Amino acid sequence: MYSGEYVPPTLTIDSVVFQWSAEQGLSVLLIQRSYEPFMGAWALPGGYCAAGETTRDAMSRVLSAKGGIDTDRLGLVEQLYTFDTVARDPRGHAVSVTYTGLGRDLKPAPGDTTQNPTFWPLQKLPDLAYDHADILAYALQRLRSKLSYTNVVYALMPPLFTLSQLQSCYEAIAGRSLDKRNFRKKILASGFLKETEKMHATGAHRPARLYEFQQQTLQTSDHIYS
Amino acid sequence: MYSGEYVPPTLTIDSVVFQWSAEQGLSVLLIQRSYEPFMGAWALPGGYCAAGETTRDAMSRVLSAKGGIDTDRLGLVEQLYTFDTVARDPRGHAVSVTYTGLGRDLKPAPGDTTQNPTFWPLQKLPDLAYDHADILAYALQRLRSKLSYTNVVYALMPPLFTLSQLQSCYEAIAGRSLDKRNFRKKILASGFLKETEKMHATGAHRPARLYEFQQQTLQTSDHIYS
Repeated sequence: MYSGEYVPPTLTIDSVVFQWSAEQGLSVLLIQRSYEPFMGAWALPGGYCAAGETTRDAMSRVLSAKGGIDTDRLGLVEQLYTFDTVARDPRGHAVSVTYTGLGRDLKPAPGDTTQNPTFWPLQKLPDLAYDHADILAYALQRLRSKLSYTNVVYALMPPLFTLSQLQSCYEAIAGRSLDKRNFRKKILASGFLKETEKMHATGAHRPARLYEFQQQTLQTSDHIYS
Repeated sequence: MYSGEYVPPTLTIDSVVFQWSAEQGLSVLLIQRSYEPFMGAWALPGGYCAAGETTRDAMSRVLSAKGGIDTDRLGLVEQLYTFDTVARDPRGHAVSVTYTGLGRDLKPAPGDTTQNPTFWPLQKLPDLAYDHADILAYALQRLRSKLSYTNVVYALMPPLFTLSQLQSCYEAIAGRSLDKRNFRKKILASGFLKETEKMHATGAHRPARLYEFQQQTLQTSDHIYS
């Protein structure tokens, strides 16, 4: 089939890199495009993937070059989904293999090829180029879904945290407030956390117990069957 | 970047189509390759995706042409993962966007281009071409994981079924036996099922209640937070 006539689509990668802090809430890394199409517009960091390079390697290369972020600094990198509608790039059919990255305390390093990389709070996003608003929405939905059966937030939280801080991170991802008592009961029953001997004291409040994650890798928890 | 020199990898699709029956357990659709490479070997149905065609459309086209299966007959089709190691195809770098399909009572229709499509029980698989054993293992792992937080088996089960039949399907996917009492408690608590007025009588056994799924689309159930 297709021999001699087969024309593949262009292959690209795009990255959705999230981080969370108590001050900024959940934020996502965007770059400001320095050439056409969509010159000047904000976009997810993305670029071409050529024959001979894996999409994961292309993701690291592009994220470093345009976004100023070293993927080794991310606590979790996962392939998200492949977006492939024919008209998504005005230059011609471009299929994008997308990745989600989660990290903490990320500061984009400036460089000759970086394109104004900036973490934008999800609450105050600018318009995005291409179908990047769809890609971001899908990444957020997937992250939300993983809240319910994995320890995925380990990659966003500091090494030690209070249950209140953890709940804030869950709420930022879920996009709504959670019942404190119910949250604590379920998160402690999940087996994802380890209680430490350390306490966190803030102002007039009673000192709060500090926790850490049992593992800094993705774990799932079985619910319906086990 | 790359203008004038950029060479994209070949883009392909591969499908992992599962069905389940009490007699065969879980089985997967394989075709027998009729040309090189891997001529004569068993493989997942797959083929090229050209510029201008979405991977989902290519999946339907190839599954019909080589596998004799109409995707409209499937209860669920989902993009699985994109496999892209550089050496996975001896002809050159080929990136494969893979899909999972779930159905019931599927009988591959013979045709001029079909390649001996056959449902193979997972217990008795032949050697597979390319990295298709890895793709199948990943599809099974994903399906297994979805057992715990979705109603995914709706696409494999007949419209009416007993809880024993449902448990058999869960066990076929999980690859191990499940505790009957615990399974019933959790599956009834999930909210995925609807009890019917109908009973199923088999030989000397006490007639068993028949159930159906509330919805014939994918639903998730929240566990850790809600």
